[in-house]
Parts: sequence; C-alpha cells; structure tokens
Amino acid sequence: MSKPTKTNSPNTAWHCQSVTREQRSKANGHMPVVLWYTGLSGAGKSTIANAVDAKLFEQGCHTYLLDGDNVRQGLNGDLTFSDKDRVENIRRIGEVSKLFVDAGVIVSTAFISPFRSDREMVRSQLAPEQFIEIYVDTALDVCEKRDPKGLYKKARTGTIKNFTGIDSPYDIPSDPEIHLETHSFSVEQCVQTVMLALKKRQIIR
Amino acid sequence: MSKPTKTNSPNTAWHCQSVTREQRSKANGHMPVVLWYTGLSGAGKSTIANAVDAKLFEQGCHTYLLDGDNVRQGLNGDLTFSDKDRVENIRRIGEVSKLFVDAGVIVSTAFISPFRSDREMVRSQLAPEQFIEIYVDTALDVCEKRDPKGLYKKARTGTIKNFTGIDSPYDIPSDPEIHLETHSFSVEQCVQTVMLALKKRQIIR
Repeated sequence: MSKPTKTNSPNTAWHCQSVTREQRSKANGHMPVVLWYTGLSGAGKSTIANAVDAKLFEQGCHTYLLDGDNVRQGLNGDLTFSDKDRVENIRRIGEVSKLFVDAGVIVSTAFISPFRSDREMVRSQLAPEQFIEIYVDTALDVCEKRDPKGLYKKARTGTIKNFTGIDSPYDIPSDPEIHLETHSFSVEQCVQTVMLALKKRQIIR
Repeated sequence: MSKPTKTNSPNTAWHCQSVTREQRSKANGHMPVVLWYTGLSGAGKSTIANAVDAKLFEQGCHTYLLDGDNVRQGLNGDLTFSDKDRVENIRRIGEVSKLFVDAGVIVSTAFISPFRSDREMVRSQLAPEQFIEIYVDTALDVCEKRDPKGLYKKARTGTIKNFTGIDSPYDIPSDPEIHLETHSFSVEQCVQTVMLALKKRQIIR
C-alpha cells in the first residue's frame, strides 16, 4: 500500500457505488426472474427444472436452482414438517429467491409448495414480471406409480403423515403462467414450452 | 408443441443434467467466494464492501452483496436481537452465502458478526478457499464519533441494549485473511488491498 490518505468520514463518498439490479441484468443479457415449479411429489418438477436450468446455462444465462437437496439440508435444516414450519419453509425460499433476482439471476425453485396462499405470498413480494408459476401437472396415480423415493408407499401405510395428495391437500394453481400437462408431453417438450414462454416474455433472447 | 411423445418415467433420463459449481465458475471466469466483512458498527464495512463489489462488477465478475438492508427486512425479518436470534441471523446469512457460492458468485456480507464462534461456524461450512474473513479494524472511539445512524448515542443512554462495543462484546478476529486498518488507509486503499488479496489467491485474474 502507498502512503496513507487521511479521511474523516470515508462513508459518505462511497455509498452511491452500489451495483443496481438493472446493471446486473444488463451485464447478464437477460432479465432476472423466479421460475416457481409446483406440483405433486414425483410430478417431475426437479427433472424439468434441472433440464430448463441446464438449457438456460448453455445459452449463457446466469441461473441457479433451489431444491430440497440444497435448501432442506442447509438454510431450512431447522424446520420440521409442521404446518407452521411448512409456511416458514416457503417464506424463506421466497426470500432467498428474491435475493437471487436482485443479484440478476434466473432462479428456479422445485418444491411441492401445495398451498396457494404460500405461493401467492411469494408472488406478492416480487414485481409481476419477476414471478413465473409453472404448474407441473401430473396425475396423482401417475406420481404414485413412479414413487421415485418410496414416499407414497410410506404415506399409504401411515409411516409418513400429512403427505400431499394422500392426507394433505394440494391447491391446484388457478392461473399459472405456464401449465405443463406431463401426460401429453415429454420432458423435452416441456422444457421447450418453458423456453418459448421465457422468450415471449422477453426474459431471454 | 409438436406431437406428444410417450414417456413413462421422464425422471430417469434427465437427472444428470444439473449444472455443477465447476461449470458455473468456468463460465464466470473467476472463483466463487464469500467475502465476510466483520467489524464494529460504523467501522466502514458496508462502504468498503460496496466499493469492492462495484470494482469486481466493473471487471466482469458475478457478484452480490448481502447486508442489513436486504436481509434484516426480508429473510431474517422474523428475528429479534436476542442472543439466540443473533446466532440464527448469522447462521442463515452463512447458509445463503453458501447458496451464492454454489451459484458461482462472489458474495460479500457486511454484518457486525461480533462472535468468533458464529464466524467460525460459517467458515466451517465452506471449503477453506471459499471463505475470506475481512476484519474492518476501526477503533471504537472513531466509530462512535461517526455514529452514522445515531446508534451509539442510543446505546450510551440505554435506549438500545446489547450494543456491540458498548454493553456487548466484539471478538477481535485472531487470524483474518485480510486485515484493514482503517486509521491508516483510505477507503480506496482498503479496496485496493482486498483486490490484490483476491488476485494473489487466484479468485480473480
């Protein structure tokens, strides 16, 4: 370091230096947004979210995916599956998504998020163009047949309580920005649908 | 959408598509890291962190700054200033920082974070090269003279309790990666010190 400079209040001169969300967006070449995937366990949320994320990344977008693996173990590791904690789980995911949007990122979240009120709480905290609800619409019997983690089986025998679709309700999105009817389309086609919707909304080029 | 394709288990084919941290780092052209600024209230943490963040952004790095403004109002809006909640405050900031590192970002945090145990908790959750503790070392009397938010005055009259440096301790970092002695150097020089340290550690080019 060179010769010290005396400053009495360095705070004042520098506070305007903060990088704005607009500057971050411009540098990234796309708009920041939350892609909020919702649907039953086994519906294919993580699969589709991961595939869209990979596609966006390939195209040079700045992306990130929040899912059970990186959130339930870490930030929300203190939460149980009680009603109160489920609300808090979604609230925190919403707040973290907001920080990522502020950082200029296209952030995807892949959680069941069964309650409309919770999804609307997250939506209400973002600008209208920053929240895209994606309903991964897969019938319960299809999800239950897949049962990739054996959870439906446990729910049916009562080993797991309050399991969405079995003994806890799932509020079907009434007006999602994107509706993926997975019984009619392949994962690849669902990815294509999301990509086209993002282009149409001028989130990506 | 074109003709539907039948798939029984779209989950299996796509799970390997996740973008890795290594891929994100490579695309960004720098390493992801947490720049953890610690120091008394009024020490200049936010000022220096903002200036470094702006400098890194200018150089094309993918950055983000977590501070009181975007965290205490949102994610940690449910927390008080009790001992338990202060620990939880830092824990969540640490977990969110980890997510940003996973997203390939250089994330800066500007919180007093007075307790060594809390800072070490965050450090322990990251790889050694991913956590840079930056001690913004400004004497208490200087901070108190600045008192940009009038908090020291309130602490002295007892309107605020448990204020760091007055009636709550600050654990001086014993071995911070970067030590900024603000009585000898200007903000600009402190920024330069941080930038040089990041180059030396090959976090940036």
